[in-house]
Amino acid sequence: MQKGALLYEGKAKQLFATNDPDIVYVQYKNSATAFNGEKKEEIAGKAELNNQITSILFNRLADKGIPSHFVEELSPTEQLVRKVAIIPLEVVVRNIAAGSLANRLGFDEGVKLEKPLVEFYYKDDALGDPLLTDAHIALLKLATEEEKQTIEHLALEINTHLQEIFYEIGVILVDFKLEFGRTTNGEILLADEISPDTCRLWDKETNQKLDKDVFRRNLGNLTDGYAIILSRLGGSSQ
Amino acid sequence: MQKGALLYEGKAKQLFATNDPDIVYVQYKNSATAFNGEKKEEIAGKAELNNQITSILFNRLADKGIPSHFVEELSPTEQLVRKVAIIPLEVVVRNIAAGSLANRLGFDEGVKLEKPLVEFYYKDDALGDPLLTDAHIALLKLATEEEKQTIEHLALEINTHLQEIFYEIGVILVDFKLEFGRTTNGEILLADEISPDTCRLWDKETNQKLDKDVFRRNLGNLTDGYAIILSRLGGSSQ
Ligand SMILES: Nc1ncnc2c1ncn2[C@@H]1O[C@H](COP(=O)(O)OP(=O)(O)OP(=O)(O)O)[C@@H](O)[C@H]1O
Ligand SMILES: Nc1ncnc2c1ncn2[C@@H]1O[C@H](COP(=O)(O)OP(=O)(O)OP(=O)(O)O)[C@@H](O)[C@H]1O
Ligand SMILES: [Mg+2]
Ligand SMILES: [Mg+2]
Repeated sequence: MQKGALLYEGKAKQLFATNDPDIVYVQYKNSATAFNGEKKEEIAGKAELNNQITSILFNRLADKGIPSHFVEELSPTEQLVRKVAIIPLEVVVRNIAAGSLANRLGFDEGVKLEKPLVEFYYKDDALGDPLLTDAHIALLKLATEEEKQTIEHLALEINTHLQEIFYEIGVILVDFKLEFGRTTNGEILLADEISPDTCRLWDKETNQKLDKDVFRRNLGNLTDGYAIILSRLGGSSQ
Repeated sequence: MQKGALLYEGKAKQLFATNDPDIVYVQYKNSATAFNGEKKEEIAGKAELNNQITSILFNRLADKGIPSHFVEELSPTEQLVRKVAIIPLEVVVRNIAAGSLANRLGFDEGVKLEKPLVEFYYKDDALGDPLLTDAHIALLKLATEEEKQTIEHLALEINTHLQEIFYEIGVILVDFKLEFGRTTNGEILLADEISPDTCRLWDKETNQKLDKDVFRRNLGNLTDGYAIILSRLGGSSQ
C-alpha cells in the first residue's frame, strides 16, 4: 500500500491517500489540544500510544462484531482504515457524570447515571460542537432517522463491550466520543479513534485519571496514564 | 375571590394565593429582564400590555380547545389562573431561525425552517436554562415520556393556532416559549403567559420587531411594539 497525498490534517491525525481509493493511511500526531484548539502542546510518545490503543480496541470490537473502518496497524504511529464520509456528529456515551454533562445539567462529577446516556453534538469547530436534539439532526439533515438509530444502537453496544474491556483491566469507562461514517454503499462504520484522547478513563482503585483530562486540567504528565492503559491492554510502549 | 399571600415573585409576575387552593392570582409586573436577569429595567405600561395580550390569546386558544390554566382577566394587570405544578421545561417552538438557534447552529436569522421545530430547555436559572435532549429529560425525570409527547403535540397545535391568529393581524410568529403544568389530577395544562416577552413577532410588511428583542438589542421603545400587537388583536391600551 503506497502512502500518497495528504488528504486532511486534523488536530490529532493526518490522513493520506493510498493507491486504493477506498483505503486511507492514518498518521497519528503528537499534538494534544483542548477547548476547541485553544490549549495546544506537542507531547512526545502520544502518537504511538493512541495508535496502539486504538488498534487494540478496534480489533477487540471487531471480534464482537462491531463494523468499523479499521483495517490494520502498519507501524507504531500509522494505521490503514477504510475511507468513509464522516457523519458530522460527535456521538458521546456517558456512564458517569463528568465534564460538560456535569457543568451543563448540574450533576456532581462522578455520579453514576441510571443508564448509559447517548448525546449527539454537531461536529463543527466554528460553532464549538453544539449539542443537538433529534429534531436538530433532522433539520440539519445530518443523518436520516434510520442512520441515527443505527448509530445510537451501535454506540450503546460499543459501550457495553468497552465497559467490559476496561473493567477487566481495572479501569472505569466514564464516557467517550465516537465518530461514524458512511461507505460508498451506504454502510455505517465506526470510524476515527478510541483512545484516552476520546474517553474518560478512571482507575478503579485509585480514581486516577488516565485520559486527556490530565492535559485539560494540568494534572501532571499526560502520557503516564496513556502508557498505563496501553500496557494493561497488553500492548507495549517503548 | 380574595387576594391572599404572595406565593412567588418571578421576574415578570407575582403569584398570590386566593381562598380557593386551586386558583391563584397573577399580578403582571412592569419589569423587563433579559440575558438571565443581567439586563433589567422598569417599563411603564408593560404589565397592562402583557396581561391583556395573554388574556386575549389564552381565550382564543381555549376556543380552539387548548387546555390552559387561564380562568379570567380581573383587572388591567391581574388574572386568575388555575394553580399547577410547573413542569421545569421551557418549551420553545420555532418557525423561523432567530436568537439562540441562529447563534448555536449557524442559521442566518430570518431563514424559514422546513417545519416547526420544538426544543426543550431546562427551566433552571442557575444553570442558564440549558438545552435538553429527550434522553436528558428522562435522565432528570422532568416529565414522563407520555407527558413529553403530550406537551410536544400541544405545542405544535398551539403554534398552528397562534400562527393563524398573528398572520391575520399582519404579524409573523417567528418563535415562542411555553410553559406547561400538572394539575392535582395529573392533567397537563398550558400555563404561564404568551406575550411579546415570550414570542418573537415581526411585522409582515416592514419586518419591524414587535417583541422583547427591542429591549434585548436596544432597538427603541419596547412598549410601542407591544401596543401595536394589543391593538391589532382588538384590545385597547390606555
Ligand atoms: N475512516 C475515515 N475516513 C475519513 N475520514 C476519517 C476517518 N476516520 C476519521 N476521519 C477523520 O479524520 C480527521 C482527522 O482526525 P483528527 O482527530 O485529527 O481531527 P480533529 O482535529 O479531531 O477534528 P476535526 O475532525 O474537526 O478536524 C477527522 O476529521 C476525522 O473525522
Ligand atoms: N398556573 C400556574 N401555577 C403555578 N405557577 C405558575 C403558573 N403559571 C405560571 N407560573 C409560574 O409563575 C412564576 C412567575 O412567573 P415569571 O414569568 O415572573 O417567572 P420568571 O421570572 O420568568 O421565571 P422563573 O419561572 O424562573 O421564576 C414562574 O415560575 C412560572 O413558571
Ligand atoms: Mg479528532
Ligand atoms: Mg417568565
